[in-house]
Amino acid sequence: MAKKYTTREEDYSKWYNEIVSRADLAENSDVRGCMVIKPYGYAIWEKMKEVLDKKFKETGHSNAYFPIFIPKSLFEAEETNAEGFAKECAVVTHHRLINDPDNKGKLIVDPKAKLEEELIVRPTSEAIIWSTYRRWIQSYRDLPILINQWANVVRWEMRTRIFLRTAEFLWQEGHTAHATKAEALAEAAQMNQVYADFAEQYMAMPVIQGLKTESERFAGADETYCIEAMMQDGKALQAGTSHFLGQNFAKAFDVKFATKEGKQEHVWASSWGVSTRLMGALIMTHSDDDGLVLPPAIAPIQVVAIPIYKTEEELAKIATLMKEVGVKLNEKGISFKFDDDDNRRPGWKFAEYEAKGVPVRLAMGPRDLENGKIEVARRDTKSKEVIDFDGVEEHVEKLMTEIQENLFRKASDFRTSNMREIDSYEDFKVKIESEGGFFLAHWDGTAETEEKIKKETKATIRCIPLDRKEEEGVCMVTGNKSAGRVVFAKAY
Amino acid sequence: MAKKYTTREEDYSKWYNEIVSRADLAENSDVRGCMVIKPYGYAIWEKMKEVLDKKFKETGHSNAYFPIFIPKSLFEAEETNAEGFAKECAVVTHHRLINDPDNKGKLIVDPKAKLEEELIVRPTSEAIIWSTYRRWIQSYRDLPILINQWANVVRWEMRTRIFLRTAEFLWQEGHTAHATKAEALAEAAQMNQVYADFAEQYMAMPVIQGLKTESERFAGADETYCIEAMMQDGKALQAGTSHFLGQNFAKAFDVKFATKEGKQEHVWASSWGVSTRLMGALIMTHSDDDGLVLPPAIAPIQVVAIPIYKTEEELAKIATLMKEVGVKLNEKGISFKFDDDDNRRPGWKFAEYEAKGVPVRLAMGPRDLENGKIEVARRDTKSKEVIDFDGVEEHVEKLMTEIQENLFRKASDFRTSNMREIDSYEDFKVKIESEGGFFLAHWDGTAETEEKIKKETKATIRCIPLDRKEEEGVCMVTGNKSAGRVVFAKAY
Repeated sequence: MAKKYTTREEDYSKWYNEIVSRADLAENSDVRGCMVIKPYGYAIWEKMKEVLDKKFKETGHSNAYFPIFIPKSLFEAEETNAEGFAKECAVVTHHRLINDPDNKGKLIVDPKAKLEEELIVRPTSEAIIWSTYRRWIQSYRDLPILINQWANVVRWEMRTRIFLRTAEFLWQEGHTAHATKAEALAEAAQMNQVYADFAEQYMAMPVIQGLKTESERFAGADETYCIEAMMQDGKALQAGTSHFLGQNFAKAFDVKFATKEGKQEHVWASSWGVSTRLMGALIMTHSDDDGLVLPPAIAPIQVVAIPIYKTEEELAKIATLMKEVGVKLNEKGISFKFDDDDNRRPGWKFAEYEAKGVPVRLAMGPRDLENGKIEVARRDTKSKEVIDFDGVEEHVEKLMTEIQENLFRKASDFRTSNMREIDSYEDFKVKIESEGGFFLAHWDGTAETEEKIKKETKATIRCIPLDRKEEEGVCMVTGNKSAGRVVFAKAY
Repeated sequence: MAKKYTTREEDYSKWYNEIVSRADLAENSDVRGCMVIKPYGYAIWEKMKEVLDKKFKETGHSNAYFPIFIPKSLFEAEETNAEGFAKECAVVTHHRLINDPDNKGKLIVDPKAKLEEELIVRPTSEAIIWSTYRRWIQSYRDLPILINQWANVVRWEMRTRIFLRTAEFLWQEGHTAHATKAEALAEAAQMNQVYADFAEQYMAMPVIQGLKTESERFAGADETYCIEAMMQDGKALQAGTSHFLGQNFAKAFDVKFATKEGKQEHVWASSWGVSTRLMGALIMTHSDDDGLVLPPAIAPIQVVAIPIYKTEEELAKIATLMKEVGVKLNEKGISFKFDDDDNRRPGWKFAEYEAKGVPVRLAMGPRDLENGKIEVARRDTKSKEVIDFDGVEEHVEKLMTEIQENLFRKASDFRTSNMREIDSYEDFKVKIESEGGFFLAHWDGTAETEEKIKKETKATIRCIPLDRKEEEGVCMVTGNKSAGRVVFAKAY
């Protein structure tokens, strides 16, 4: 009965793909590099969206919506940004199909319906948004503008991987406009902090907040804040970025405002985003060889209850009790599913909800019924206990907190034991291969050294941590002066 | 000070555009036919989404997400559907831009990056979804599939109008798969009922539920249910549609399932959608010459409070009291905004929130403060009254219901007085021009007669009402037999 699945040990990448499929999260589609997000996967994304959206609104942002297409002339305007995205973008050139005269039932592009100007499917929306902000901003009274958009974007990546790197993905992108540099910088830092809080408190995923080096920055940014997480194979995953865009887009789109003193100045900007990539981060932070493991705070189903019965009468009695538990859990804000599907056996259901990462499973059979007991199983530790039926709701409520905390602690411990300071480049080259993980090393601050390390080891500088020790040292490669350690790792 | 705005009487279409702009709902973008939905407009759309999403989930549906692109070969598969949308669709043909060698800083499409197969930006997702369902459906156990998607779609309309007809728009599209015809039909009818309930109970917009005639059906549907609303200029607006797709897509994509008896049968389907077009319907149902009018049930701000003061001390006292009201209203689930922006005068604010359709406005000045009074103004009736400050929350709570009901009643009365039975085609031709509105007339059931009427009067059959009287009659044009009256109107 039990199908043999790949373990993390055997083949991490295959394990990942199997989790995505076993938990019914998503699948590849008939469109190259694009995924179908299935209901269960989408339900997790919805939970994430809900929390993030609330945090954005609490920090003063409103949602809006801008066009999916960017006319080529606008796309070109900010050159660094255009260069960064031109190589992999979907280009709309025509607006009509006609019947193929040589092939009945088939359609061809109508050559007469060529667009005067090509449209780029947005890979990110700075260009279209800043061409709009130009109309919205005249005076300091119009600032700040604090807008977020939930949208799909397209980047024509050559190598795609479900959730981690797909041609189309879902995300949110915040785009703000400010009167001063300090305010725009503070906004970028604030939103990175929002991402960090979300990652740690909801996804139970510890992250390092830092700044990107110049070569790893967003195309068009003066500074890129990021959160970096460690996956179970020791690789880094960039889980969110927040950019200080300086006046680059304001200059490219000629967006000026009148100051209180009546001077004309260019506007300062930030942009920040997280995407369905977070789903990949979630999977690779907590899941085990038996399937997905979800932190309660973002689990669509937090508690599942499974009846074990032979007769209809037994089922009826168990159902009554379990549904009562469900009502009480709902009152505590805990989501609950009672699965009495008669087509499936309990063993099948156990495996199913385990694969789907449901944090707590309740089970009840005729003997439990007789003894006033119920079985409670935790997905994170895979421990089971039979407890008194009375008070099960309070027990489960406590478990929600315990599981959330345990997952964060476990991930933190894992990261701690796979993150180390290193001073010898020779050691580094060996250990990045043999042990993996994060390496805190001194670097001389040059793009040349960064590039050399990347070429020789495939490791990149994930970030310059915001909270790093001020510690003078020497670059592990060149021996030149360094102002502090940076994080090196191989990355997704 | 007061800018002169266009009235409905003067120029209905210009009035509409001005409302969109005065209420800060949306604007045209730099992309032909695509709109920018501004924060206040998007907040209304979010309220609509929230209610609809809840209703979809209560009726057993889950959200998911499918690719924005449809490969041409899939797009072609269901021929009626393809024909219906081929004439106006955005086609992606290339995946890269390169530097223009003749023009520094400019980009051109890279001719080497031509896609092997063109991709259509979804005008609707039946094709990509049914090519996916083929993989998901093997047996009756896999049915029904009840999925909804919130997404953007693109239809390359030649004449666009903000919210009503835009090249890109936001919508939801439900796509369901069933084992039997009866179940798929019942689903289509059920979702049309959900739309009708939403329109009437939340948007306060009365609708007629009906079936489309064959020539007005969705391309690929066997039957199209719809809700039709009457705008203040007497024209009809199709506010939502729900299609029974028969086995058309199952046959086009070869989606079969094994029945309980082990036979192979094609799956039955429905699809249903409402879009940002509802924003246009909302505006044209309730708004007046002073701006937008919003039903409380979907107003982002239900109550606004404006202090009238000369001194800081006065403001402080008023603010304390108004904020208390705000807290109490929030506890009742009523959204509240206290606007103490010192840069704007009360008169400006009054006009601003009037234009934005905020249902209730509270105002308080020094004299009110002294007398324990507060001014309460209704947006719908434009009536004002000064009441005791104590108990203002209860009063406002009642107003929420009253305003919601009043708007629905007013719109219903308007529709009643602009809907009439008519039996003479000569009369019809005159009155559809002179009076407008909805005409209930007998029709012989042929596409020829329908086409003749459309050509001669620009009126179309909006629907065959679900609840129409069974009444034998004769077609107003041909004199042939008719089984009942249908609704004729000019439409958006």
